[in-house]
Amino acid sequence: MSSVKVKKKLNKLKEQLADIVGTENVDDTTSGRLVYSYDATPNYQSLPDLVVAPGNAEETAAVLKLCSETETPVYSRGSGSNLCADTCPVKGGVVLLVKRMNKILELDKENLAVTVQPGVITKTICDTVEKEGLFYPPDPSSMKISTIGGNISENSGGLRGLKYGVTRDYVMALQIALPNGELIRTGGKLTKDVAGYDLTRLFIGSEGTLGVITEATLKLIPKPEAQKTILALYQDIEAAGRSVSKIIANKMIPATLEFLDQDTLRAVEDFAHIGLPTDVKAILLIVQDGPQEIVDRDIKKIAEICRSEQAVDVQLAASEEEAEKLATARRSALSALARLKPTTILEDATVPRSEIATMVRAISEIAEKYNVRISTFGHAGDGNLHPTCLTDSRNEDEMQRVEAAFSEIFEKAIELGGTLTGEHGIGMTKAPYLEWKLGEAGLQVMRGIKQAIDPKNIMNPGKVFADESKERMVAAK
Amino acid sequence: MSSVKVKKKLNKLKEQLADIVGTENVDDTTSGRLVYSYDATPNYQSLPDLVVAPGNAEETAAVLKLCSETETPVYSRGSGSNLCADTCPVKGGVVLLVKRMNKILELDKENLAVTVQPGVITKTICDTVEKEGLFYPPDPSSMKISTIGGNISENSGGLRGLKYGVTRDYVMALQIALPNGELIRTGGKLTKDVAGYDLTRLFIGSEGTLGVITEATLKLIPKPEAQKTILALYQDIEAAGRSVSKIIANKMIPATLEFLDQDTLRAVEDFAHIGLPTDVKAILLIVQDGPQEIVDRDIKKIAEICRSEQAVDVQLAASEEEAEKLATARRSALSALARLKPTTILEDATVPRSEIATMVRAISEIAEKYNVRISTFGHAGDGNLHPTCLTDSRNEDEMQRVEAAFSEIFEKAIELGGTLTGEHGIGMTKAPYLEWKLGEAGLQVMRGIKQAIDPKNIMNPGKVFADESKERMVAAK
Repeated sequence: MSSVKVKKKLNKLKEQLADIVGTENVDDTTSGRLVYSYDATPNYQSLPDLVVAPGNAEETAAVLKLCSETETPVYSRGSGSNLCADTCPVKGGVVLLVKRMNKILELDKENLAVTVQPGVITKTICDTVEKEGLFYPPDPSSMKISTIGGNISENSGGLRGLKYGVTRDYVMALQIALPNGELIRTGGKLTKDVAGYDLTRLFIGSEGTLGVITEATLKLIPKPEAQKTILALYQDIEAAGRSVSKIIANKMIPATLEFLDQDTLRAVEDFAHIGLPTDVKAILLIVQDGPQEIVDRDIKKIAEICRSEQAVDVQLAASEEEAEKLATARRSALSALARLKPTTILEDATVPRSEIATMVRAISEIAEKYNVRISTFGHAGDGNLHPTCLTDSRNEDEMQRVEAAFSEIFEKAIELGGTLTGEHGIGMTKAPYLEWKLGEAGLQVMRGIKQAIDPKNIMNPGKVFADESKERMVAAK
Repeated sequence: MSSVKVKKKLNKLKEQLADIVGTENVDDTTSGRLVYSYDATPNYQSLPDLVVAPGNAEETAAVLKLCSETETPVYSRGSGSNLCADTCPVKGGVVLLVKRMNKILELDKENLAVTVQPGVITKTICDTVEKEGLFYPPDPSSMKISTIGGNISENSGGLRGLKYGVTRDYVMALQIALPNGELIRTGGKLTKDVAGYDLTRLFIGSEGTLGVITEATLKLIPKPEAQKTILALYQDIEAAGRSVSKIIANKMIPATLEFLDQDTLRAVEDFAHIGLPTDVKAILLIVQDGPQEIVDRDIKKIAEICRSEQAVDVQLAASEEEAEKLATARRSALSALARLKPTTILEDATVPRSEIATMVRAISEIAEKYNVRISTFGHAGDGNLHPTCLTDSRNEDEMQRVEAAFSEIFEKAIELGGTLTGEHGIGMTKAPYLEWKLGEAGLQVMRGIKQAIDPKNIMNPGKVFADESKERMVAAK
């Protein structure tokens, strides 16, 4: 298409979108588009043609209908804190912001449920329900900035996955805008509902490739009465791994069971200055919650297990404030590491928890083999590690080695019965590897579902499915 | 097709199936087919043409491939204990039995996971893991005879749904034979896995319409240390409903919170003779489990709440044996009621738990309006009621009134934010109503998925999708 025609088509689309959402909610300025040309994933950037912010579910559905009719790519976006380039508008088209849909609609204390719009910040939900003695457990490290819509689209995990599960386990009902412009509701305030296929969970974690979540009802649980935090210090990484296995084998499921290696520890301490030990090879940060007497009993037993597995020291957080500081420090691991080098590539290969020690050792050997710097931290209790490579994207030779190293890490995770990604998603970064996990037959099932729901392939094209080659409607630059 | 041609085609199919599974595992005798012409659902019966029992996943996949090629309907079947006619071979074709795939393959204590074949009996899994101090919570009332493959296909619930969730919440990984003859694996021994769409949960509860489950890895949790059971007796059904809400509002989630009305109580006592009170309007059977001190504390508080809500008596089960007797009596409710009249129609309309009292009252009013006898019991804590109609299918006039009454019950459940079926499935019995819950747009999404995965519509045709009119390959009679 000639550039004049492209421009004409784009202007018409802009007008039609403005008819739906209002002129003030459509942006085609360079600066406005630039803001949404990238997300938290390094090395991915592409300009959208337009940025649109619908104000409700009906407007969202109408935008999708228009985009289907005009075969315009749509990328729904919360805060863009994802780490797999899922909100990068790689094929041009429209970035659809959910930021105006940011209300908590209802807190239903009788049914332990909260109903929210997709643009609500995760931590706002947690804080709101905790005031009522209730608890929304999923806590991705980005929870201070991430939106619940993004969490649902990515099936976000966090530090409490081991005991409490992930976002998927707390979504009871959804309202979804489909590419054909229809709005559907799935589920309800119900523990049990087997009326039809589990569309709720099909859309959770579908990374914006099937529809846009316009409302969600989340399951809440009573807030645990008490909580205690300990740090176990190790000079031997394998001993830390064995401690993890032994705690679980002793029939205790801690709320949080985090692992940090020395490199990460030093970076975090340098960043947060809270007095973390930096002279040990690894630590486990362990939190138990529940009724006070059970927390006391479990923490005592856990400390004994860590000591019996050669922990050089076990420290109990003296106060809630200190425990909170430790958790915050752990959450800041990525930010802390990111200060050290121009480019930080964070992965989340995941293995069965019995393979944690093997995987940590394998990562370290692979890093050595390719001569790259990889720090490892992560959710040891659920086998979800975050090998993090500190590098510089301008160094092409090193970047090739980084890529080779991560390929080998993915391969190893799958070999150990694990997966490519525990909580970050496939997006663009892991799409070429997805077949390794699912096989061609599994991918074929996914393609069939995608084709059935989004036949024009307008929803987040270029993500999840690697060989996607859908033409962009309008040139991105 | 002429009957000679039909016979010829059928003989060929029989030979081809025998080539896959062995002659001894294909049955075309009238008696053999008769056994599998119906399931636990009253009033549905249809003869299959053949019954086949593959011995492993590869044979299962090969059978499906052959059935796709020959456009032969396939109905996978465990013990046939489902209550929505899901295993009734309504379009003729092949009943595929999973009974030969009945091994527990691995109990992985480090990762708290058990891997099983589909034909293992649910209770066998529970008993096996409990010997190791572990716990598989889903406990459908049919657990003594139901297979895990059936539980997964139906997403079975049970008495512990409120606190522990349903089958869906305990399936970590599946191996599935697809209609195209491919075998896929989904998930892993992982709490966190976001590599692609959630195919695990798409197949859970898909009622045999998408594929056959050939292996499953189930999540286990540590077995609760202690358990206590109480009975709360009421002369006022609304007071029982209020007690349920108040227990949860007080931040306690009992393991089991069952409701039985007087009609059910009398039938159960008459059947089980364990000394249940039959002079009260309703009872709540409440179980709490967990650490001993927490169980003691919760049961004390729960008893106080029940008394404060006009329970006329609260009785503590004196021993584990007595508690077990009460649970067994509750599980026998359907059998007990079924003795009273020739036909027993059990439904499972489900509402948010705050609507339990409203729903029980509505059911009673609807029964009166249509002059039919409906007893109600069920899982009050998760809003999953089992209104049970005692009737006689030979009485056409009454059966019409029964159908009208249940239609109104479904409508009421949906109006209250509930669903058609909490744990029994759609199958044939509720297929005509499914659109009420999902809307045409939701059903359309389901149809698209079905078409993508099973384009020849061989998997359990005539179920879930009401307007299904796929031609049978071979006449059933």
